[in-house]
Amino acid sequence: MSLLFRHLRIHQIFGANTDVGKTILTTALVRASAVLKNEVFYLKPISTGPIQDADDEHIRRYCGAPQDKVHTDCLYRFHVPVSPHLAAQIAAGGEADKIVPDDTFLNSISSYVRRCASRVSGPAHLYLETAGGVHSPTLSGVTQLECYRPLFLPTILVGDSRLGGISATISAYESLLLRGYIIDSILLFRDQYYRNSEFLTPYFAERGIEVTAVDAPPPKAVDPAENLASTERYYESLNLLPVVQNLDVRHQQRLAELDSMPRRSIDTFWWPFVQHGLVKSEKDVTVIDSASSDFFSVYKAQNAEQLTSSLESQLDGSASWWTQALGHAHPALTLAAARASGRYGLRWASRAFFSDDGSTAMEVALKMALRAFSVREKLEATARKALGVLGIKGSYHGDTIGAMDACAEQGVFTCEWHNAKGYWFDPPTVSIQEGITIAVNTTNSMSWVYDLPGRLHSPLAQVYRKYISHTLDGLEHSGGPRLAALVLEPLVMGAGGMIFVDPLFQRISSTLSGNAIPLPPIQQETGAVFVGLYRLGMQSTIPFLGAAPDISVHAKILTGGLIPLAVTLASDSIFRAFYSANKAEALLHGHSYTAHPLGCEVANETLKLIEKEVQSEPWAAARARWELDGTPSVMWSLWDPRFVQALSCLENVAEVMALGTVLSIKVKDVQAGYASQSAQILLQSIRIHDHDTESFASGGVPQFSVHFRTLGNVAYFMTSLNTAPEIIRAVEDKVWKALETKKSLSE
Amino acid sequence: MSLLFRHLRIHQIFGANTDVGKTILTTALVRASAVLKNEVFYLKPISTGPIQDADDEHIRRYCGAPQDKVHTDCLYRFHVPVSPHLAAQIAAGGEADKIVPDDTFLNSISSYVRRCASRVSGPAHLYLETAGGVHSPTLSGVTQLECYRPLFLPTILVGDSRLGGISATISAYESLLLRGYIIDSILLFRDQYYRNSEFLTPYFAERGIEVTAVDAPPPKAVDPAENLASTERYYESLNLLPVVQNLDVRHQQRLAELDSMPRRSIDTFWWPFVQHGLVKSEKDVTVIDSASSDFFSVYKAQNAEQLTSSLESQLDGSASWWTQALGHAHPALTLAAARASGRYGLRWASRAFFSDDGSTAMEVALKMALRAFSVREKLEATARKALGVLGIKGSYHGDTIGAMDACAEQGVFTCEWHNAKGYWFDPPTVSIQEGITIAVNTTNSMSWVYDLPGRLHSPLAQVYRKYISHTLDGLEHSGGPRLAALVLEPLVMGAGGMIFVDPLFQRISSTLSGNAIPLPPIQQETGAVFVGLYRLGMQSTIPFLGAAPDISVHAKILTGGLIPLAVTLASDSIFRAFYSANKAEALLHGHSYTAHPLGCEVANETLKLIEKEVQSEPWAAARARWELDGTPSVMWSLWDPRFVQALSCLENVAEVMALGTVLSIKVKDVQAGYASQSAQILLQSIRIHDHDTESFASGGVPQFSVHFRTLGNVAYFMTSLNTAPEIIRAVEDKVWKALETKKSLSE
Repeated sequence: MSLLFRHLRIHQIFGANTDVGKTILTTALVRASAVLKNEVFYLKPISTGPIQDADDEHIRRYCGAPQDKVHTDCLYRFHVPVSPHLAAQIAAGGEADKIVPDDTFLNSISSYVRRCASRVSGPAHLYLETAGGVHSPTLSGVTQLECYRPLFLPTILVGDSRLGGISATISAYESLLLRGYIIDSILLFRDQYYRNSEFLTPYFAERGIEVTAVDAPPPKAVDPAENLASTERYYESLNLLPVVQNLDVRHQQRLAELDSMPRRSIDTFWWPFVQHGLVKSEKDVTVIDSASSDFFSVYKAQNAEQLTSSLESQLDGSASWWTQALGHAHPALTLAAARASGRYGLRWASRAFFSDDGSTAMEVALKMALRAFSVREKLEATARKALGVLGIKGSYHGDTIGAMDACAEQGVFTCEWHNAKGYWFDPPTVSIQEGITIAVNTTNSMSWVYDLPGRLHSPLAQVYRKYISHTLDGLEHSGGPRLAALVLEPLVMGAGGMIFVDPLFQRISSTLSGNAIPLPPIQQETGAVFVGLYRLGMQSTIPFLGAAPDISVHAKILTGGLIPLAVTLASDSIFRAFYSANKAEALLHGHSYTAHPLGCEVANETLKLIEKEVQSEPWAAARARWELDGTPSVMWSLWDPRFVQALSCLENVAEVMALGTVLSIKVKDVQAGYASQSAQILLQSIRIHDHDTESFASGGVPQFSVHFRTLGNVAYFMTSLNTAPEIIRAVEDKVWKALETKKSLSE
Repeated sequence: MSLLFRHLRIHQIFGANTDVGKTILTTALVRASAVLKNEVFYLKPISTGPIQDADDEHIRRYCGAPQDKVHTDCLYRFHVPVSPHLAAQIAAGGEADKIVPDDTFLNSISSYVRRCASRVSGPAHLYLETAGGVHSPTLSGVTQLECYRPLFLPTILVGDSRLGGISATISAYESLLLRGYIIDSILLFRDQYYRNSEFLTPYFAERGIEVTAVDAPPPKAVDPAENLASTERYYESLNLLPVVQNLDVRHQQRLAELDSMPRRSIDTFWWPFVQHGLVKSEKDVTVIDSASSDFFSVYKAQNAEQLTSSLESQLDGSASWWTQALGHAHPALTLAAARASGRYGLRWASRAFFSDDGSTAMEVALKMALRAFSVREKLEATARKALGVLGIKGSYHGDTIGAMDACAEQGVFTCEWHNAKGYWFDPPTVSIQEGITIAVNTTNSMSWVYDLPGRLHSPLAQVYRKYISHTLDGLEHSGGPRLAALVLEPLVMGAGGMIFVDPLFQRISSTLSGNAIPLPPIQQETGAVFVGLYRLGMQSTIPFLGAAPDISVHAKILTGGLIPLAVTLASDSIFRAFYSANKAEALLHGHSYTAHPLGCEVANETLKLIEKEVQSEPWAAARARWELDGTPSVMWSLWDPRFVQALSCLENVAEVMALGTVLSIKVKDVQAGYASQSAQILLQSIRIHDHDTESFASGGVPQFSVHFRTLGNVAYFMTSLNTAPEIIRAVEDKVWKALETKKSLSE
């Protein structure tokens, strides 16, 4: 029963507390609206206390406009000045069934609002003023925030300007946010002593909400005539026109966003189980503005003449793909999902397909690639089943069986049904050994290794090209599988043992094609785990490797470590392979929580925060430390280059690599392999909390131990993007001490 | 830097607002503690305003105990009575770098608390009183809730007893909750007029928190001596001993929970990539109490003599399996995950393995089953790769390729790498046709069909047995795949077209074994989607089918439609197949967000709410409607039996089924199949919003349209467990009207 009218902008006014000036500020809003519009409505659903003090009475008195312009109303009036739930109990004389239930209460409001909308044609405003604070109880005893939620009206929050008001305002805001309300504006009185507005203005600016502070009203005059005059003068002195205009803009933006959503969705999303060839027009897209209990609020664009609500209730009759057990307990803001699409900045990709983790996103990627190849090559069913992929030994793409089948048989990471389908190259690797950078057998500086344009014409590049061509030819002649896709973990293979592959080799293999028609390359930036989104210090490896994939997979970091969400991005050519008039040819893949609003909302927030972090001072300083001869290097790390160099010279260290947030240390161990415990043993001391120096380590950092992971004889350390430099330095100290003092495994 | 001492219970006191009585109620707590314990500490980290009005001064004056028993302290004192951030700015004379930063502030508190802890041996209490409301700014300008979060102290919230105080108290509570704080108690003044405590007591009781209301203090006397005396009398009249004892109990419970967690985890969880044979003792389990920025708070049990904190900071050096981009933005309450284990009430299962969706949970189940069979049968590598599963045609277990391989080749739901591995029976089905229930060819009442004990000795049961044995024998002789597991969707196959399988057939197939050794049966209660957790009206199908599986898969409904989470439950015998001293033999499967705290917390809450719903009046009424001859039937539905019967007699309806929340309608259509649009076409009118009767439908339900899903010629409707009966009746009306008036597809 959500309400949204094109011609009638509605806002509900919530207070951060009682007695914060809701009515006074609403009066000022009504006055400003009356200047701009022909008609203004004011609704006080519940009023308690004597009639002469009633809020609607105050509005009528001071609205500064004739009564045919400003309409005021109250639906439930009680004369006792207590909380509405108590007033209702008193009025019901203790008979519980005489108390107005929530649905009746909401129906009254809804009918009132619809009547207002149907009788004005021009643009108009409606303000609904709630009672007390955000969580004050309504007639039934349910708190207001919960009770009003099905109407889903945009909100103006009136902040608290008194002592303690900063806290009250923020908590009220968070309670609103928890129910998914749209908050368009915060108003409060200016107070020269407590200066709450000075604190709250930047606080909320960061959260995208404008705070407006206005002078408080003059003290009440004893003489009624004088009081009337001074109050009127006070209202004349206020100017909320900019606020009202901003509310109009917000209203128009919301409509524009909803209006454009079907087109943007058709152009961007790859829906599960949907044959996009059957999605004929924008009308075929269901735009869900919000959801509450069993109902979606579905948006239907109205033209300017239509005076009914643009939001319609639609029963969620499949319990949201069988997932809903108790109705939509929290509002499912599908709006948020739609916003995600424009944010990746990966221009090669035209479609986003959502799933739940890197492994499922890889399964989606494989289904896309195999189908695209089959369609292009017009393969018959038998030939389709025999397709394979091309990859690099040591890569690992996830634990589901399809993702595993895109990797070589690896010994430990296997299962009964694992069937490696394809061919995998032996990888030339990069590491720092005894202070010297090596790529395969050449001895060069680290930045040289990552300077791909410079190396593309080197003799080694020629060797790589020959090796790749030769291998693929051999494969074809020996009756190996037909290769349908190239699958890469760019720059570093994680689960395989933190293997840094020579980027030149990846670059060449991604541009060399083994088949007559090009393979669709898949890049598993799992989670943008190791690579994308700055895990390795760069936003994306695409410009770096000089080759955009047809499909890429992103998970992990995407939601900042909070909730599962993954996305498979695809180019238009891949998308077209599934596009037809036949539903059965669609990509019939989709998990129950595909593109769930919580994940999308959190992902958007994460991307926003990451972009901030990239501009931070610690990042600039770390980049500068890795600069050679004052030239910025693409190869840099939050770990100190001197530490990395020194580490690589230690007796028990085989090799080290650092890139972006990652530090990888391979210790010397004849056994090696996944089951080896050598890295664990050598570094075990840093897992232990040092109680002797209880509270502080050097640099004012509180004492801590370190949790880390190993892959056999490789230990790796990974910081967040915003880990404080002094913490990274402290970890370096600990690692250094552990490895320097413990010369070998047997010590 | 979280703090938790066995011998020193600490609580921080937060106020719902300023001036709500924090200091008075803390004084009363200190007095009660002094009665019980030898030593009590009171810390006011920041005090603003004149010294004679300072809170620590008040405590000293009225604590009712000698100074060597009650110790009071203040760390930062300012004499201007403004918010701490303004006081700090004034004291710094506008020089920003003279303002105490958050980490220094927290280090001071931490050092103070550790000193207190180290100098008392017996049990003692410490109260830390914050300033203003929960979100009032600290010295640096960060709000208190955020600033104090790393210390992670359990909280006492002082509620607001004034007008508007209900709202202020709930919002403050929600702000605390958003940061994961443990809230042990809510205190506030009793107010006879506003009666906030009467509202808040049941409100918070439902959320597991005790509210204690005490008399407000007397008005301040003008004469200092009289004021002292009356205040002292007031404190003497209060009795917070029960509150203090309750806080002690909470403290002990927390320690007991943490102490027992390693053992419970070892006994219950199946960790990803972990060789359980190497988890030697409780010491090998890392118990994470909370997480904040880059750090875990790890619990180390202390004995009674140790006076240091039981919580140690540990750097999350692998960025939580590479997922953390910005530190732990929200506290990762791993505590919550541990609580989940005891809640399923499925006694056959001994282990829970978490993943992200039904499809990944099925992959886990298959890996478990195939391995268990291979180990029991001592199969060589080649034989392992050739294993298959036994199932029923029309079943569908998820979109990842491994899950698809456990299903028959189905035409549309296929992909290049899909390779059906096993054998699938043709299913005998159940439906209502023209008012008559049929199972296969027998004509009987619906309850008879679901009365399995009664049917086990019927001639049909004999037919099923013969058919199954004969088929399996034939398969063995014809060189079919060796079968390693029986995979069933109990009672209804969803994606396959809402096919209700004769439960007698499933029961017999789950007890008949085709192999010399029993197959591990897997039940895909996906999401407890259709079956478990009351989707079909019963808590579980296990007692119903008379056979417990070795493995079962649950997703969808588990988190009430909010976030992805899935669990694969396994019996001990399955778990043992992976148990050894060799890491490589562990179940090497695990997704980045395995058992993420948000999912586990939401799942626990969902399970709690579902158990309430099952006891509700609408469920009792619906059950009664399906009773025949007054006998309760296992077969019942929220849909009305008369509606279902009548529907099945309509000309254009082929068959109908209703069970629990599900209504399935197969319309007559020669085309049928997944690509058929017939169910869509016949029912399309109920998708359309009826604008003529704008606001209300019959029964006071607001007007709505219905969103529903179809599978070719099958339309199905699914309610939430708590959908209001009048809404279900309104949907029945709409469906009836659509099907009754539209006689055939061509009309």
